[in-house]
Amino acid sequence: MKLLQDRIRKDGDVLSSHVLKVDSFLNHQVDPLLTMEIGKAFAERFAGEPITKVLTIEASGIQFAMATALALGVPFVYAKKKKAVTLTEDVYSVPVESFTRKETYQVSVSKKYLTADDTVLIVDDFLATGAALIGLVDIIGQAGAKLVGVGAVIEKSFQEGRGLLEQKGVRIESLARIESMSPEEIHFIEETATTC
Amino acid sequence: MKLLQDRIRKDGDVLSSHVLKVDSFLNHQVDPLLTMEIGKAFAERFAGEPITKVLTIEASGIQFAMATALALGVPFVYAKKKKAVTLTEDVYSVPVESFTRKETYQVSVSKKYLTADDTVLIVDDFLATGAALIGLVDIIGQAGAKLVGVGAVIEKSFQEGRGLLEQKGVRIESLARIESMSPEEIHFIEETATTC
Repeated sequence: MKLLQDRIRKDGDVLSSHVLKVDSFLNHQVDPLLTMEIGKAFAERFAGEPITKVLTIEASGIQFAMATALALGVPFVYAKKKKAVTLTEDVYSVPVESFTRKETYQVSVSKKYLTADDTVLIVDDFLATGAALIGLVDIIGQAGAKLVGVGAVIEKSFQEGRGLLEQKGVRIESLARIESMSPEEIHFIEETATTC
Repeated sequence: MKLLQDRIRKDGDVLSSHVLKVDSFLNHQVDPLLTMEIGKAFAERFAGEPITKVLTIEASGIQFAMATALALGVPFVYAKKKKAVTLTEDVYSVPVESFTRKETYQVSVSKKYLTADDTVLIVDDFLATGAALIGLVDIIGQAGAKLVGVGAVIEKSFQEGRGLLEQKGVRIESLARIESMSPEEIHFIEETATTC
Protein backbone atom coordinates (compact mmCIF):
# COMPACT_ATOMS: atom_id res chain seq x y z
CA MET A 1 0.00 0.00 0.00
CA LYS A 2 1.94 2.95 -1.36
CA LEU A 3 0.11 5.62 0.67
CA LEU A 4 1.11 3.83 3.87
CA GLN A 5 4.71 3.16 2.81
CA ASP A 6 5.15 6.81 1.85
CA ARG A 7 3.75 7.89 5.22
CA ILE A 8 6.04 5.51 7.11
CA ARG A 9 9.03 6.93 5.21
CA LYS A 10 7.86 10.48 5.96
CA ASP A 11 6.65 10.22 9.58
CA GLY A 12 7.98 6.92 10.92
CA ASP A 13 10.86 7.12 13.36
CA VAL A 14 13.43 4.32 13.04
CA LEU A 15 15.15 4.10 16.41
CA SER A 16 17.26 1.05 15.57
CA SER A 17 17.36 -1.81 13.06
CA HIS A 18 14.46 -3.39 15.02
CA VAL A 19 12.46 -0.50 16.48
CA LEU A 20 10.11 1.62 14.35
CA LYS A 21 7.91 4.23 16.01
CA VAL A 22 4.75 5.18 14.15
CA ASP A 23 3.02 6.82 17.08
CA SER A 24 2.55 10.15 15.33
CA PHE A 25 -0.04 8.69 12.92
CA LEU A 26 -0.91 5.06 13.70
CA ASN A 27 -0.81 4.01 17.36
CA HIS A 28 -0.85 6.91 19.82
CA GLN A 29 -1.84 9.87 17.70
CA VAL A 30 -3.93 8.45 14.86
CA ASP A 31 -4.77 9.78 11.39
CA PRO A 32 -8.39 8.63 10.91
CA LEU A 33 -8.41 9.10 7.13
CA LEU A 34 -5.31 6.93 6.64
CA THR A 35 -6.88 4.40 9.05
CA MET A 36 -10.01 4.26 6.88
CA GLU A 37 -7.85 3.62 3.79
CA ILE A 38 -6.09 0.81 5.68
CA GLY A 39 -9.48 -0.72 6.51
CA LYS A 40 -10.54 -0.54 2.84
CA ALA A 41 -7.25 -2.14 1.74
CA PHE A 42 -7.78 -5.11 4.08
CA ALA A 43 -11.38 -5.48 2.87
CA GLU A 44 -10.16 -5.51 -0.77
CA ARG A 45 -7.43 -8.06 -0.12
CA PHE A 46 -9.88 -10.44 1.52
CA ALA A 47 -12.77 -9.65 -0.84
CA GLY A 48 -14.83 -12.72 -1.68
CA GLU A 49 -14.28 -14.35 1.70
CA PRO A 50 -17.52 -14.81 3.67
CA ILE A 51 -16.20 -12.88 6.68
CA THR A 52 -18.67 -12.50 9.57
CA LYS A 53 -16.37 -10.85 12.10
CA VAL A 54 -13.10 -8.95 12.42
CA LEU A 55 -10.97 -9.82 15.45
CA THR A 56 -8.17 -7.75 16.97
CA ILE A 57 -6.50 -7.19 20.32
CA GLU A 58 -6.61 -4.10 22.51
CA ALA A 59 -5.44 -1.42 22.31
CA SER A 60 -3.59 -0.51 19.14
CA GLY A 61 -5.48 -2.86 16.84
CA ILE A 62 -8.87 -1.32 17.60
CA GLN A 63 -8.86 1.57 15.10
CA PHE A 64 -7.82 -0.75 12.27
CA ALA A 65 -10.45 -3.35 13.20
CA MET A 66 -13.04 -0.56 13.28
CA ALA A 67 -12.10 0.66 9.78
CA THR A 68 -11.93 -2.88 8.36
CA ALA A 69 -15.24 -3.95 9.93
CA LEU A 70 -16.87 -0.82 8.54
CA ALA A 71 -15.53 -1.57 5.05
CA LEU A 72 -16.73 -5.19 5.28
CA GLY A 73 -20.09 -4.38 6.90
CA VAL A 74 -19.58 -6.73 9.86
CA PRO A 75 -19.00 -6.27 13.63
CA PHE A 76 -15.56 -6.44 15.18
CA VAL A 77 -14.40 -7.93 18.46
CA TYR A 78 -11.34 -6.86 20.41
CA ALA A 79 -9.67 -9.37 22.67
CA LYS A 80 -8.89 -8.14 26.18
CA LYS A 81 -5.40 -8.21 27.59
CA LYS A 82 -5.06 -8.78 31.30
CA LYS A 83 -2.22 -9.36 33.70
CA ALA A 84 -4.13 -12.28 35.15
CA VAL A 85 -7.59 -13.45 34.28
CA THR A 86 -10.05 -15.21 36.51
CA LEU A 87 -10.68 -18.08 34.15
CA THR A 88 -14.37 -18.56 33.88
CA GLU A 89 -16.29 -20.84 31.61
CA ASP A 90 -17.51 -17.95 29.51
CA VAL A 91 -14.24 -16.84 27.87
CA TYR A 92 -11.72 -18.29 25.46
CA SER A 93 -8.30 -17.44 26.81
CA VAL A 94 -4.63 -17.90 25.97
CA PRO A 95 -1.36 -16.73 27.59
CA VAL A 96 0.75 -14.44 25.42
CA GLU A 97 4.31 -13.43 26.11
CA SER A 98 5.12 -9.77 25.47
CA PHE A 99 8.67 -9.32 24.26
CA THR A 100 8.67 -5.54 24.58
CA ARG A 101 7.26 -5.58 28.11
CA LYS A 102 8.93 -8.83 29.21
CA GLU A 103 5.82 -10.24 30.81
CA THR A 104 3.09 -12.74 30.12
CA TYR A 105 -0.50 -11.60 29.91
CA GLN A 106 -3.76 -13.38 29.35
CA VAL A 107 -5.72 -12.67 26.16
CA SER A 108 -9.43 -13.41 26.30
CA VAL A 109 -12.60 -13.21 24.23
CA SER A 110 -16.12 -13.84 25.48
CA LYS A 111 -17.58 -17.07 24.13
CA LYS A 112 -20.71 -15.11 23.27
CA TYR A 113 -18.93 -13.18 20.52
CA LEU A 114 -17.02 -15.91 18.69
CA THR A 115 -18.65 -19.19 17.70
CA ALA A 116 -18.29 -22.09 15.27
CA ASP A 117 -20.59 -20.16 12.91
CA ASP A 118 -18.06 -17.33 12.50
CA THR A 119 -15.63 -16.75 9.64
CA VAL A 120 -12.99 -14.43 11.02
CA LEU A 121 -10.40 -11.96 9.72
CA ILE A 122 -7.73 -10.98 12.26
CA VAL A 123 -6.16 -7.52 11.96
CA ASP A 124 -3.46 -5.80 14.02
CA ASP A 125 -1.05 -2.91 13.74
CA PHE A 126 2.22 -4.90 13.73
CA LEU A 127 3.35 -8.38 12.74
CA ALA A 128 6.77 -8.88 14.34
CA THR A 129 7.29 -11.83 16.70
CA GLY A 130 3.73 -12.89 15.97
CA ALA A 131 3.04 -13.75 19.62
CA ALA A 132 -0.22 -11.80 19.96
CA LEU A 133 -1.49 -12.89 16.53
CA ILE A 134 -0.74 -16.55 17.24
CA GLY A 135 -2.72 -16.12 20.47
CA LEU A 136 -5.69 -14.84 18.47
CA VAL A 137 -5.38 -17.76 16.01
CA ASP A 138 -5.47 -20.10 19.01
CA ILE A 139 -8.62 -18.41 20.34
CA ILE A 140 -10.34 -18.81 16.95
CA GLY A 141 -9.42 -22.50 17.14
CA GLN A 142 -10.93 -22.78 20.62
CA ALA A 143 -14.15 -21.27 19.27
CA GLY A 144 -14.21 -23.68 16.32
CA ALA A 145 -14.53 -20.64 14.04
CA LYS A 146 -13.02 -20.44 10.55
CA LEU A 147 -9.99 -18.16 10.04
CA VAL A 148 -9.61 -16.50 6.64
CA GLY A 149 -6.30 -14.84 7.45
CA VAL A 150 -4.35 -12.11 9.17
CA GLY A 151 -4.08 -8.50 8.03
CA ALA A 152 -1.11 -6.62 9.47
CA VAL A 153 -0.68 -2.91 8.90
CA ILE A 154 3.12 -3.15 9.18
CA GLU A 155 5.18 -6.32 9.00
CA LYS A 156 8.75 -6.49 10.20
CA SER A 157 9.67 -9.23 7.78
CA PHE A 158 13.07 -9.75 9.42
CA GLN A 159 11.37 -11.10 12.57
CA GLU A 160 9.90 -14.57 12.98
CA GLY A 161 6.14 -13.79 13.04
CA ARG A 162 5.33 -14.47 9.37
CA GLY A 163 7.18 -17.79 9.41
CA LEU A 164 5.40 -18.97 12.54
CA LEU A 165 1.96 -18.06 11.13
CA GLU A 166 2.73 -19.63 7.74
CA GLN A 167 3.68 -22.87 9.52
CA LYS A 168 0.11 -22.90 10.81
CA GLY A 169 -1.19 -22.41 7.26
CA VAL A 170 -2.39 -18.87 7.93
CA ARG A 171 -2.78 -16.49 4.98
CA ILE A 172 -1.07 -13.17 5.73
CA GLU A 173 -1.66 -9.81 4.06
CA SER A 174 0.60 -7.02 5.25
CA LEU A 175 0.19 -3.52 3.86
CA ALA A 176 3.81 -2.50 4.43
CA ARG A 177 6.46 -5.23 4.63
CA ILE A 178 9.76 -3.98 5.97
CA GLU A 179 12.72 -6.04 4.83
CA SER A 180 15.28 -3.96 6.72
CA MET A 181 15.56 -0.51 8.21
CA SER A 182 17.97 1.99 9.66
CA PRO A 183 17.57 5.61 10.73
CA GLU A 184 18.70 6.51 7.19
CA GLU A 185 16.60 4.16 5.08
CA ILE A 186 13.64 1.77 5.10
CA HIS A 187 13.51 -1.09 2.58
CA PHE A 188 10.05 -2.42 1.79
CA ILE A 189 9.40 -5.77 0.14
CA GLU A 190 7.47 -5.01 -3.04
CA GLU A 191 4.36 -7.12 -3.47
CA THR A 192 3.51 -8.28 -6.95
CA ALA A 193 0.49 -10.52 -6.44
CA THR A 194 -1.76 -7.94 -4.80
CA THR A 195 -3.87 -5.15 -6.16
CA CYS A 196 -3.31 -2.33 -3.69
CA MET B 1 -29.60 9.95 21.01
CA LYS B 2 -32.62 7.78 20.44
CA LEU B 3 -30.87 5.16 18.28
CA LEU B 4 -28.41 4.53 21.10
CA GLN B 5 -31.00 4.50 23.87
CA ASP B 6 -33.12 2.01 21.95
CA ARG B 7 -30.08 -0.21 21.41
CA ILE B 8 -29.15 -0.07 25.12
CA ARG B 9 -32.72 -1.09 26.02
CA LYS B 10 -32.58 -3.92 23.45
CA ASP B 11 -29.05 -5.27 23.90
CA GLY B 12 -27.72 -3.82 27.15
CA ASP B 13 -27.49 -6.17 30.11
CA VAL B 14 -28.30 -4.61 33.48
CA LEU B 15 -26.58 -6.79 36.07
CA SER B 16 -27.46 -4.59 39.05
CA SER B 17 -28.58 -1.02 39.80
CA HIS B 18 -24.97 0.08 39.08
CA VAL B 19 -23.63 -2.38 36.49
CA LEU B 20 -24.62 -2.16 32.82
CA LYS B 21 -22.93 -4.40 30.28
CA VAL B 22 -22.90 -3.19 26.69
CA ASP B 23 -20.17 -5.52 25.47
CA SER B 24 -22.30 -7.04 22.72
CA PHE B 25 -22.28 -3.80 20.69
CA LEU B 26 -20.05 -1.11 22.23
CA ASN B 27 -16.97 -2.29 24.12
CA HIS B 28 -15.95 -5.87 23.37
CA GLN B 29 -17.93 -6.74 20.29
CA VAL B 30 -18.53 -3.45 18.48
CA ASP B 31 -21.15 -2.35 15.94
CA PRO B 32 -19.15 -0.09 13.60
CA LEU B 33 -22.21 1.61 12.05
CA LEU B 34 -23.62 2.60 15.44
CA THR B 35 -20.13 3.76 16.41
CA MET B 36 -20.00 6.01 13.33
CA GLU B 37 -23.39 7.51 14.29
CA ILE B 38 -22.05 8.15 17.80
CA GLY B 39 -19.05 9.96 16.30
CA LYS B 40 -21.34 12.11 14.14
CA ALA B 41 -23.52 12.94 17.16
CA PHE B 42 -20.50 14.17 19.14
CA ALA B 43 -19.33 16.22 16.15
CA GLU B 44 -22.80 17.82 15.87
CA ARG B 45 -23.04 18.62 19.56
CA PHE B 46 -19.66 20.36 19.52
CA ALA B 47 -20.13 21.93 16.05
CA GLY B 48 -18.67 25.42 15.82
CA GLU B 49 -15.88 24.70 18.30
CA PRO B 50 -12.41 25.01 16.72
CA ILE B 51 -11.41 21.48 17.72
CA THR B 52 -7.93 20.40 16.59
CA LYS B 53 -7.77 17.03 18.34
CA VAL B 54 -9.93 14.35 19.94
CA LEU B 55 -8.50 12.74 23.09
CA THR B 56 -9.53 9.43 24.66
CA ILE B 57 -8.04 6.68 26.79
CA GLU B 58 -7.25 3.10 25.81
CA ALA B 59 -8.88 0.75 25.18
CA SER B 60 -12.66 1.17 25.05
CA GLY B 61 -12.64 4.84 24.05
CA ILE B 62 -10.65 4.26 20.87
CA GLN B 63 -13.46 3.33 18.46
CA PHE B 64 -15.51 6.37 19.55
CA ALA B 65 -12.53 8.71 19.25
CA MET B 66 -11.89 7.28 15.78
CA ALA B 67 -15.49 7.91 14.65
CA THR B 68 -15.58 11.40 16.20
CA ALA B 69 -12.21 12.42 14.76
CA LEU B 70 -13.34 11.23 11.34
CA ALA B 71 -16.55 13.28 11.59
CA LEU B 72 -14.59 16.36 12.68
CA GLY B 73 -11.71 15.89 10.23
CA VAL B 74 -8.98 15.99 12.89
CA PRO B 75 -6.54 13.43 14.37
CA PHE B 76 -7.20 11.66 17.65
CA VAL B 77 -4.86 10.70 20.45
CA TYR B 78 -5.38 7.87 22.90
CA ALA B 79 -3.80 8.12 26.31
CA LYS B 80 -1.90 5.03 27.43
CA LYS B 81 -2.73 3.24 30.66
CA LYS B 82 0.14 1.59 32.49
CA LYS B 83 0.60 -0.11 35.82
CA ALA B 84 3.68 1.98 36.41
CA VAL B 85 5.29 4.43 34.06
CA THR B 86 8.94 5.37 33.87
CA LEU B 87 8.35 9.08 34.14
CA THR B 88 10.33 10.74 31.43
CA GLU B 89 10.32 14.34 30.41
CA ASP B 90 8.49 13.59 27.20
CA VAL B 91 5.05 12.57 28.57
CA TYR B 92 2.24 14.24 30.48
CA SER B 93 1.12 11.79 33.13
CA VAL B 94 -1.43 11.48 35.92
CA PRO B 95 -2.37 8.68 38.36
CA VAL B 96 -5.93 7.41 38.02
CA GLU B 97 -7.68 5.11 40.46
CA SER B 98 -9.76 2.35 38.89
CA PHE B 99 -12.80 1.52 40.97
CA THR B 100 -13.70 -1.63 39.04
CA ARG B 101 -10.17 -3.03 39.20
CA LYS B 102 -9.25 -1.57 42.60
CA GLU B 103 -5.88 -0.37 41.49
CA THR B 104 -4.11 2.82 40.50
CA TYR B 105 -2.63 3.13 37.05
CA GLN B 106 -0.70 5.85 35.31
CA VAL B 107 -2.29 7.60 32.32
CA SER B 108 0.12 9.25 29.92
CA VAL B 109 0.21 11.20 26.65
CA SER B 110 3.32 12.09 24.69
CA LYS B 111 4.10 15.82 24.84
CA LYS B 112 4.58 15.71 21.07
CA TYR B 113 0.86 15.12 20.48
CA LEU B 114 -0.76 17.65 22.80
CA THR B 115 0.40 21.25 22.96
CA ALA B 116 -0.78 24.72 23.97
CA ASP B 117 -1.92 25.21 20.36
CA ASP B 118 -4.52 22.42 20.64
CA THR B 119 -8.26 22.74 21.25
CA VAL B 120 -9.38 19.37 22.51
CA LEU B 121 -12.59 17.34 22.74
CA ILE B 122 -12.42 14.38 25.13
CA VAL B 123 -14.59 11.33 24.38
CA ASP B 124 -15.03 8.05 26.24
CA ASP B 125 -17.48 5.16 26.45
CA PHE B 126 -18.70 5.72 30.03
CA LEU B 127 -19.02 8.64 32.43
CA ALA B 128 -19.53 7.11 35.89
CA THR B 129 -17.08 7.99 38.69
CA GLY B 130 -15.34 10.34 36.26
CA ALA B 131 -11.88 9.25 37.43
CA ALA B 132 -10.40 8.56 33.99
CA LEU B 133 -12.00 11.65 32.43
CA ILE B 134 -10.73 13.91 35.21
CA GLY B 135 -7.29 12.43 34.56
CA LEU B 136 -7.57 13.43 30.89
CA VAL B 137 -8.73 16.95 31.86
CA ASP B 138 -5.64 17.19 34.07
CA ILE B 139 -3.39 16.13 31.19
CA ILE B 140 -4.92 18.81 28.93
CA GLY B 141 -4.16 21.32 31.68
CA GLN B 142 -0.54 20.13 31.86
CA ALA B 143 -0.26 20.66 28.10
CA GLY B 144 -1.76 24.15 28.35
CA ALA B 145 -4.28 23.09 25.69
CA LYS B 146 -7.88 24.34 25.55
CA LEU B 147 -10.65 21.90 26.49
CA VAL B 148 -14.01 22.30 24.73
CA GLY B 149 -15.73 19.54 26.66
CA VAL B 150 -16.32 15.88 27.30
CA GLY B 151 -18.47 13.58 25.19
CA ALA B 152 -19.60 10.40 26.93
CA VAL B 153 -21.43 7.66 25.06
CA ILE B 154 -23.24 6.51 28.22
CA GLU B 155 -23.56 8.46 31.46
CA LYS B 156 -24.55 6.84 34.72
CA SER B 157 -26.09 10.01 36.09
CA PHE B 158 -26.56 8.49 39.53
CA GLN B 159 -22.77 8.39 40.02
CA GLU B 160 -20.56 11.34 40.89
CA GLY B 161 -18.66 11.86 37.61
CA ARG B 162 -20.82 14.62 36.09
CA GLY B 163 -20.80 16.64 39.31
CA LEU B 164 -17.03 16.41 39.64
CA LEU B 165 -16.48 17.53 36.03
CA GLU B 166 -19.04 20.36 36.31
CA GLN B 167 -17.21 21.64 39.40
CA LYS B 168 -14.22 22.07 37.09
CA GLY B 169 -16.37 24.00 34.62
CA VAL B 170 -16.29 21.24 32.01
CA ARG B 171 -19.08 21.07 29.42
CA ILE B 172 -20.48 17.52 29.21
CA GLU B 173 -22.48 15.96 26.39
CA SER B 174 -23.68 12.43 27.03
CA LEU B 175 -25.60 10.57 24.36
CA ALA B 176 -27.51 8.33 26.79
CA ARG B 177 -27.97 9.56 30.37
CA ILE B 178 -29.15 6.83 32.70
CA GLU B 179 -31.05 8.14 35.72
CA SER B 180 -31.64 4.71 37.21
CA MET B 181 -31.72 1.12 36.07
CA SER B 182 -32.69 -2.38 37.08
CA PRO B 183 -32.78 -5.68 35.21
CA GLU B 184 -36.39 -4.81 34.38
CA GLU B 185 -36.13 -1.21 33.30
CA ILE B 186 -33.75 1.59 32.31
CA HIS B 187 -34.75 5.23 32.88
CA PHE B 188 -33.03 7.76 30.64
CA ILE B 189 -32.90 11.49 31.39
CA GLU B 190 -34.49 13.19 28.40
CA GLU B 191 -32.44 16.04 26.97
CA THR B 192 -34.30 19.09 25.74
CA ALA B 193 -31.53 21.49 24.78
CA THR B 194 -29.83 19.26 22.24
CA THR B 195 -30.54 18.45 18.65
CA CYS B 196 -29.85 14.74 18.38
